Amino acid sequence: MPLNVTQKLIKAHLVSGEMIPGTEIGLKIDQTLTQDATGTMVMLELEAMGLERAKTEASAQYVDHNLIQVDSKNPDDHLFLQSATRRFGLYYSRPGNGVSHPVHMQRLAKPGKTLLGSDSHTCANGCMGMLAMGAGGLDVALAIAGEPFYVKMPQVWGIKLTGKLSDWVSAKDVILELLRRYDVKGGVGKVIEYYGPGVNTLSAMDRHVIANMGAELGATATVFPSDHEIQLFLTEQGREEDWVELVADKGAAYDLNEEIDLSQVEPLIAKPSSPGNVVAVTEVAGTPIYQSYIGSSANPGFRDFAIAAEIVKGREVAQGISFDINPTSRQMLTDLVKESHIASLLQAGARLHQAGCNGCIGMGQAPATGRNSLRTTPRNFPGRSGTREDSVYLCSPETAAASALTGEITDPRTLDFPYPQIKEPKEPTVDTNLLEPPLPYEEARKVELHKGPNIASIPEMDEMPDQLEIPILLKMGDNISTDEILAGGARVLPYRSNLPEISKFSFEIIDKTYYTRGKESIAGGGHAIVAGMNYGQGSSREHAALAPRYLGLRVALVKDFARIHWQNLVNFGILPLTFVHEEDYDNLNQGDVLQLSDLRSKIQQGTEFTINVKGSTQLIHVKHALSKRQVDVMLKGGMINWVKERQRKNA
Amino acid sequence: MPLNVTQKLIKAHLVSGEMIPGTEIGLKIDQTLTQDATGTMVMLELEAMGLERAKTEASAQYVDHNLIQVDSKNPDDHLFLQSATRRFGLYYSRPGNGVSHPVHMQRLAKPGKTLLGSDSHTCANGCMGMLAMGAGGLDVALAIAGEPFYVKMPQVWGIKLTGKLSDWVSAKDVILELLRRYDVKGGVGKVIEYYGPGVNTLSAMDRHVIANMGAELGATATVFPSDHEIQLFLTEQGREEDWVELVADKGAAYDLNEEIDLSQVEPLIAKPSSPGNVVAVTEVAGTPIYQSYIGSSANPGFRDFAIAAEIVKGREVAQGISFDINPTSRQMLTDLVKESHIASLLQAGARLHQAGCNGCIGMGQAPATGRNSLRTTPRNFPGRSGTREDSVYLCSPETAAASALTGEITDPRTLDFPYPQIKEPKEPTVDTNLLEPPLPYEEARKVELHKGPNIASIPEMDEMPDQLEIPILLKMGDNISTDEILAGGARVLPYRSNLPEISKFSFEIIDKTYYTRGKESIAGGGHAIVAGMNYGQGSSREHAALAPRYLGLRVALVKDFARIHWQNLVNFGILPLTFVHEEDYDNLNQGDVLQLSDLRSKIQQGTEFTINVKGSTQLIHVKHALSKRQVDVMLKGGMINWVKERQRKNA
Repeated sequence: MPLNVTQKLIKAHLVSGEMIPGTEIGLKIDQTLTQDATGTMVMLELEAMGLERAKTEASAQYVDHNLIQVDSKNPDDHLFLQSATRRFGLYYSRPGNGVSHPVHMQRLAKPGKTLLGSDSHTCANGCMGMLAMGAGGLDVALAIAGEPFYVKMPQVWGIKLTGKLSDWVSAKDVILELLRRYDVKGGVGKVIEYYGPGVNTLSAMDRHVIANMGAELGATATVFPSDHEIQLFLTEQGREEDWVELVADKGAAYDLNEEIDLSQVEPLIAKPSSPGNVVAVTEVAGTPIYQSYIGSSANPGFRDFAIAAEIVKGREVAQGISFDINPTSRQMLTDLVKESHIASLLQAGARLHQAGCNGCIGMGQAPATGRNSLRTTPRNFPGRSGTREDSVYLCSPETAAASALTGEITDPRTLDFPYPQIKEPKEPTVDTNLLEPPLPYEEARKVELHKGPNIASIPEMDEMPDQLEIPILLKMGDNISTDEILAGGARVLPYRSNLPEISKFSFEIIDKTYYTRGKESIAGGGHAIVAGMNYGQGSSREHAALAPRYLGLRVALVKDFARIHWQNLVNFGILPLTFVHEEDYDNLNQGDVLQLSDLRSKIQQGTEFTINVKGSTQLIHVKHALSKRQVDVMLKGGMINWVKERQRKNA
Repeated sequence: MPLNVTQKLIKAHLVSGEMIPGTEIGLKIDQTLTQDATGTMVMLELEAMGLERAKTEASAQYVDHNLIQVDSKNPDDHLFLQSATRRFGLYYSRPGNGVSHPVHMQRLAKPGKTLLGSDSHTCANGCMGMLAMGAGGLDVALAIAGEPFYVKMPQVWGIKLTGKLSDWVSAKDVILELLRRYDVKGGVGKVIEYYGPGVNTLSAMDRHVIANMGAELGATATVFPSDHEIQLFLTEQGREEDWVELVADKGAAYDLNEEIDLSQVEPLIAKPSSPGNVVAVTEVAGTPIYQSYIGSSANPGFRDFAIAAEIVKGREVAQGISFDINPTSRQMLTDLVKESHIASLLQAGARLHQAGCNGCIGMGQAPATGRNSLRTTPRNFPGRSGTREDSVYLCSPETAAASALTGEITDPRTLDFPYPQIKEPKEPTVDTNLLEPPLPYEEARKVELHKGPNIASIPEMDEMPDQLEIPILLKMGDNISTDEILAGGARVLPYRSNLPEISKFSFEIIDKTYYTRGKESIAGGGHAIVAGMNYGQGSSREHAALAPRYLGLRVALVKDFARIHWQNLVNFGILPLTFVHEEDYDNLNQGDVLQLSDLRSKIQQGTEFTINVKGSTQLIHVKHALSKRQVDVMLKGGMINWVKERQRKNA
């Protein structure tokens, strides 16, 4: 049977299960990626597992999130991460080296391989003909330890690209077009695979832009073929030997089909406060802006900065506009300097920031209260910018640069000069200074972990009880993101290695009383939460499961879950349930007490059961989607207990 | 009588008093400078005074401190400052444009003029043949309103420079040499004036380095002549018409004399945690470092970055070293980019940050706990870096760059290559994009102040009572800096426009219970503090007086005061007293209750009086150094009340 690229990748890495969409499969993981905000917990988990040395082909720890060092917490975490990578045999990408996704692409990504990362935009490296997936930290820790990654076999969604992008339209507009058509749930349970003649017109970095924001569609992964463009990219990076061709067989079919004629795509923009809230730029043109922001893994390429530089070159940004430039890798910044693009940006009035995630994760560059911020970043969930009452739009570098010049949202096609042509540097800089390779084993085993005063171990967690009588502490609506469950940003991120402290921020954006009420619930056996569709969308942070669990969350009952968060709930022993009858959502209120009896046997015996509501005759029909393995994990109170027990048996 | 430069500047601006050292004089102020951390309060004060338009020749508001925007507080403050500058007719230097002192020097400084700034390093512009002084915000607000600045007539300390600096030694080492000889109190009550043949060997920017850290000696100002080097500098900046010659008359004398042979100066370094803790680099060579930091107004020049770039060019910084580059003005950054110095720094492994004060004021780049940080900044007071247990060394760019290469403190003379020669750019960039000029009056008067939700008015303050019976809440040692009284850094600075919130950080580094005990003291009439020598050294922040006053501080009784803080205490109605017999310091304990009776008449009648200690027969002899005008201010409860009353009378 002719196979598409996704099927080839899965087939080559399948260690358990069958390739039937919706059933659990186990995949061998070749490479992993962790960033600092999730990585400290991953390293603590590796320590707890007693790992001797990473079993993957390449695992890299990036420091790109927590770059603002206002006190010792972040730099202490960096030193801890460095010591852990030396101990366990990982690559260590030092602060200032850039954002994980483009740096990984430049230095380590290989066509034909699997990549698991504790960052939801790990899918970006699907541009390289890889199966690249975001996951919770614990899943990545297990992968580093050589365990398979378990995931539901996705449907493969073939998107045929035809035509060629017009002037002033770029890759960002392509993924915004898909978000316009399908919104933030459109990719759930699917791998998006791009094919067709239009693919050839997109560079490797263009494909990165499109693959990156597959996360915003909720897709399991995004896959591009490994073709001549990928060969070219790897050759420029001095890694031509890492290239292999990987294209779909002739006649390969897809579970679902869609088509985009690139020549018909126009400049698009996602309005506040969802990446799925997409309209044509023309519809909002003229809206005054406060900030124009270039950067992030959603527009990380040399051309993304160069086009902005060429648009503003010899001109001035409008008075009062904060024009923020956030380089995505140090080696690319060097090229942008060499090719005079940084000079053009500065002369037009830019603020140049260090290479890293920065404002994309709320680490600086927050907009003023209520003012409009235009960004080339992937997400605009409420408050993610750091400003509570924010108003963030997502767009291409062309639209952001044009708007910086005029001071209002501007369709770049209305500028009165021709579309600048960008030349990629003839010999792109290759810079490995800040990427420390793994130590040889004999050296590595002698390394001690360096733990600063803010780094706390993970507390013990109890088994799942057989009976629960627990109140609903929160009832929430649709599309609750992990940013709302546990905020990112400079206030919160420095506590990523300290569970008792970070738990204080749980659901803070939604209800400031949750922390206190949660802690109080523990004595009574914990609590539940109820929510609508697409619960837990957005970032992969496992802290969004771990912190509420620490505060007594035992059951999450929702209309449906975002994939990574669902997996994180399982990993930390929070029972993820969905309604059999969605209308039951309306029958539950905050404060209602749920009664779950014979829970341990019920989740083993079937996938559906009923819950009583105290003081009511009403029965709520619920179901779970746990595999047999996951039921076992759940009974033990989560994956850490499960792994510990396995270790005891193996010892 | 032949006059020195300082005397000429004072004579030309004298509006009251006589030029007798130690007596109060009033000076006409031509220019002012405010930065964002102090400026928000200044603008609130201008509003409270009902100012119609700035009466100075040029007043500029810089945004260089609070550049980390982790939420809406800082950007909201920026918008407030922009609206206030537009309203009152000031220049507005936007975030990203650079540090106030070098930008002011490049764009607005003029030989022969006076400059008052709400930043203790305002003295840096003394390099331009100006009388440039740091002061509290309220003093600057009064100057903007056209009021004279009152200060004790300083002694003039003539420092004759001879010879020429050796290779690998630069201006920073000259000021460190003076700090080595005289420590952090050596300049108190003095203007330091440099003269002699060695001056000609120093560029305008070299002189800036030396003048800047006059603040660390406690000097009222530092003055250089306006000679050919200044003419050259202004010409390069496109402002040759602003140059006038200003040199000492032949035969001019000084109150005090010192001499430095530049050829004998060697690489020096200030050890933790005082700028006066200076030793030769050779004495600490080999100490391992964690960070090498280039930037700040203490080494702001093109050559300071270019020399670091040339030293690391084609080499790599040692593994694990954070090599942080902090450009000081955007126009200089543009030149550093154009001349390939930024490329050299990046390729060696640097982290490039946005133009601004940054880590110098604890806004990012804090070192890891207990690790050694080498910085070209002016100050290393405990905790100023943001890290509580910090270990900061101050040195030249040569020493910092050499140490970055080796990973340990390194005398740059031991490097195995010749001292690189720096060429200044032939045509330095002149960039006024981000420096908004004052609006014409007719436009300005229509501008409304834009106040974000974090901007709070200054509460009313009561008159000085005639009787006080108040406890000593803190007894402190020598050299307490304003960083210890009220920390800077990213945690605290965003509250600079919100007194109730910022007061929570008062004396926090010294005693975490002060805030609560202070608030409790208010009901009983307030409290006192006792300290040793040089109380209130360091930054000019008036919040270090205003916040304790808000918490009930009425009397500060110390061995002696740093000048600016003393003035801030007066401005906010806190009575600054010193011991007549210094040994009485030893007779007072924290918790003792001071009884002050007939206080209002006593401070009017003389400068000395006695204080009872409750439950003891002991009398403490104290004195004040208030002028008649200041006694009046004190009686009214501070300068805001005093100005308000004058306005009522004038109305």
